[in-house]
Amino acid sequence: MSIKVTIIGAGSVVFSLGLVKDLCLTEGLKGSKVCFMDINEESLDVVYRLGLRYAEDLGSELKFESTQNREKSLQDADFVINTATITHNEYFMKRRRELTARHGYFYGHTGMPEYHNLQLMLDVAKDMEKICPSAWILQAGNPVFEGTTLMTRETSIKVCGLCHGHYGYRQIAHTIGLDSDRVIWEAPGLNHNIWLTYFRCEDKDAYPVLDEWIKNNSELYWEERQKKGEIPAQMSPAAVHQYKMFGLMPVGDTPRVGGWWYHTDLETRMRWYGGPIGGGDTPEGRDRILKGKEKHYQQMKEAAYDPAIRPIKLFGDKKTSEQHIPIIDGLVNDNEGKFQVNIPNNGVLPGIPDDVAVEVPAIVNKKGIQPLPIHTLPKKIMLECIYPDWLDMERTLEALKLGDKSMLLYGILNSHQTKSYDHAMEVLEALLNIDPNEPMAYVKDINEHYKWPKNW
Amino acid sequence: MSIKVTIIGAGSVVFSLGLVKDLCLTEGLKGSKVCFMDINEESLDVVYRLGLRYAEDLGSELKFESTQNREKSLQDADFVINTATITHNEYFMKRRRELTARHGYFYGHTGMPEYHNLQLMLDVAKDMEKICPSAWILQAGNPVFEGTTLMTRETSIKVCGLCHGHYGYRQIAHTIGLDSDRVIWEAPGLNHNIWLTYFRCEDKDAYPVLDEWIKNNSELYWEERQKKGEIPAQMSPAAVHQYKMFGLMPVGDTPRVGGWWYHTDLETRMRWYGGPIGGGDTPEGRDRILKGKEKHYQQMKEAAYDPAIRPIKLFGDKKTSEQHIPIIDGLVNDNEGKFQVNIPNNGVLPGIPDDVAVEVPAIVNKKGIQPLPIHTLPKKIMLECIYPDWLDMERTLEALKLGDKSMLLYGILNSHQTKSYDHAMEVLEALLNIDPNEPMAYVKDINEHYKWPKNW
Repeated sequence: MSIKVTIIGAGSVVFSLGLVKDLCLTEGLKGSKVCFMDINEESLDVVYRLGLRYAEDLGSELKFESTQNREKSLQDADFVINTATITHNEYFMKRRRELTARHGYFYGHTGMPEYHNLQLMLDVAKDMEKICPSAWILQAGNPVFEGTTLMTRETSIKVCGLCHGHYGYRQIAHTIGLDSDRVIWEAPGLNHNIWLTYFRCEDKDAYPVLDEWIKNNSELYWEERQKKGEIPAQMSPAAVHQYKMFGLMPVGDTPRVGGWWYHTDLETRMRWYGGPIGGGDTPEGRDRILKGKEKHYQQMKEAAYDPAIRPIKLFGDKKTSEQHIPIIDGLVNDNEGKFQVNIPNNGVLPGIPDDVAVEVPAIVNKKGIQPLPIHTLPKKIMLECIYPDWLDMERTLEALKLGDKSMLLYGILNSHQTKSYDHAMEVLEALLNIDPNEPMAYVKDINEHYKWPKNW
Repeated sequence: MSIKVTIIGAGSVVFSLGLVKDLCLTEGLKGSKVCFMDINEESLDVVYRLGLRYAEDLGSELKFESTQNREKSLQDADFVINTATITHNEYFMKRRRELTARHGYFYGHTGMPEYHNLQLMLDVAKDMEKICPSAWILQAGNPVFEGTTLMTRETSIKVCGLCHGHYGYRQIAHTIGLDSDRVIWEAPGLNHNIWLTYFRCEDKDAYPVLDEWIKNNSELYWEERQKKGEIPAQMSPAAVHQYKMFGLMPVGDTPRVGGWWYHTDLETRMRWYGGPIGGGDTPEGRDRILKGKEKHYQQMKEAAYDPAIRPIKLFGDKKTSEQHIPIIDGLVNDNEGKFQVNIPNNGVLPGIPDDVAVEVPAIVNKKGIQPLPIHTLPKKIMLECIYPDWLDMERTLEALKLGDKSMLLYGILNSHQTKSYDHAMEVLEALLNIDPNEPMAYVKDINEHYKWPKNW
């Protein structure tokens, strides 16, 4: 069936071209239309040109359009994939990190609740209610947990949040010497907070294999990987420590988060995530990622305008492992599959309210996205990992809803790096007065939105 | 009706004699028997002698017995008032404070989950299941929130937790110039975490009077009270700040708690609770309380053995404001009254599980303890004050249930005064290896009870 897929924030070139490739390689979606939307004219043109030529390379009948106008992009859309971000931009994050470092915070761990990205998601979903009320939104941009919950609560749009962190199970399997294609697994929870509740290699429990690896091989592995420059967070000392502390192996982005005590300074990061730069989530680690992205974008840009470079040479002709297009294929063409999705709980994760977005396995077909029953999380993980995260999310959404500045302050006071009440007040004001980046102009100003309570 | 009331931890002389007085002055409980139980022979004898002579002074037919044997004390008991404590002893707390101060913690804010007092409560309730299964337990010793929840979950005994913090409403009323006898109020929540949801003086909303007082009189009041040596926590800058931050006035012990940022060091305490010693919850403030208690106890001891001193001269002949005996009178004699109690939620506080002890107003008569519907707490207070406290309680009880040492560690890591992972480990071991006090011998050893998880 031919449909219209709109990609908001399409200037994330690599991500968008992955979607183009998956669409081209999905027989059932032949003749569909892709609408690229971005506020950045340059990157929008890059992705549009590459998309066109990539479809040619793959012999696809995909049609393309591009626009800087969000409302226009939503016209007749069947699926909206939202990867847009305001604050999760590498340059902005670097600038904000540097600002907060001057106030004594390491790597921006200020606890400031998110505003801009959530407001943007809400604006998109509200536009959809008017323009394409039957369309699905597949939410790719972060924060997926807060955003998916927010949009499902505040609008009537069908929402599914997607992430790829759960593929961390492959890295676990591979590292401990198992064939990941033979591993049966389950890792439910909240986005960026998922735990390996089920882990078998065909008919055998794979946890004992992990335990053996930790006992006999982990130290050597860390030493060797460190020499090569980096230990993956998934198999880092922090991940193993979380496994010991909470009782199940954390998956994907989960070991990148964990407790405050893994992230207080560079030395501590090196202890838990390995040297020489303490993993990706450090100033230097992130600078490295930024440089990589910059270089990659320059290559894309050249390729977009150089007829000699064919996209198929850059991106190949194999489907990505992203779930967006297969899910669309399932919903539209009944081409059934099992996925890891973020959808309202409705009883799947006991003890969590129905209207909270949980990350769980689901079967997707023409009937919709149907969560599978899960092995419940141990009470210890609920109490030490899931509920605290749930509460943070609820406070972030309530702050947004009330426009209550004191709730931003509470968030900062909740950061373990905040040293005193005055320290919190100081960094709150600094963050509210940071030079805005360009996309911020597209949502309501943060200082207009948040006010102190009336008797403050 | 004559009944048997057992007081566990009766060596808390002033508290026990208050109960004796209330019993003597309650017509419907004439001829009842009081059983004093304590492991401390000396203070037990003091309270027994004073009790006997106080009853004489008041012309009462109350009968007395005393024992150091808990099981014996429970025989035929109709009500057990448990005020016993292992760790909430002034000398032990001082010693523990000094130990943790050497590890860099101010005023013992280590976050270490409670063990001994909870284990004791559980032991008492389990004894009651065997010896006096129909008796009520009125839990007076702290932690009331955790303990009441624990006992109702783990035993079949009828439990009611009691505190007097809610009388803080009187201090609020009095300070802002209202007659507390004309004030209609409501302050539900969790024990030590209750909020003034309803505050009227006869037919007028009293919150505007409080707002006016804050605006026009608070500064002068603080100045004057400080000169006299102390600002009461109930009307301190911290209490007013919590009101501004969370939206309702905190009551009783609530403003003594609040966020970590009120309690980081003496200077900060002085800012929020006034000079010169930063209120009662500081090392010097607590030393002052200890000295007062010591002096008081010496007076009691002398009075106990000096026939020339009559207890009525020391304690008067008016009922106390404690709720224990009036609640017994309500349950036994249908002498109905309204009280502030801690009982399993069962839907009174929306959003909190049914089996969590909440502090709410209740009507007590022969039908039992019947919670009244309440004005619900604002979502902001739920998210920032109630749920975090609920989670702490759940983690404390789960740690106790599993005997999981890593959950003690998690509690310490959750303290804002903990500076690093190693810091937490260090103070955890110090606390586990503190020289035990005498009452600790009466519960299972903490180091036998808590073990690291199997793969630690």
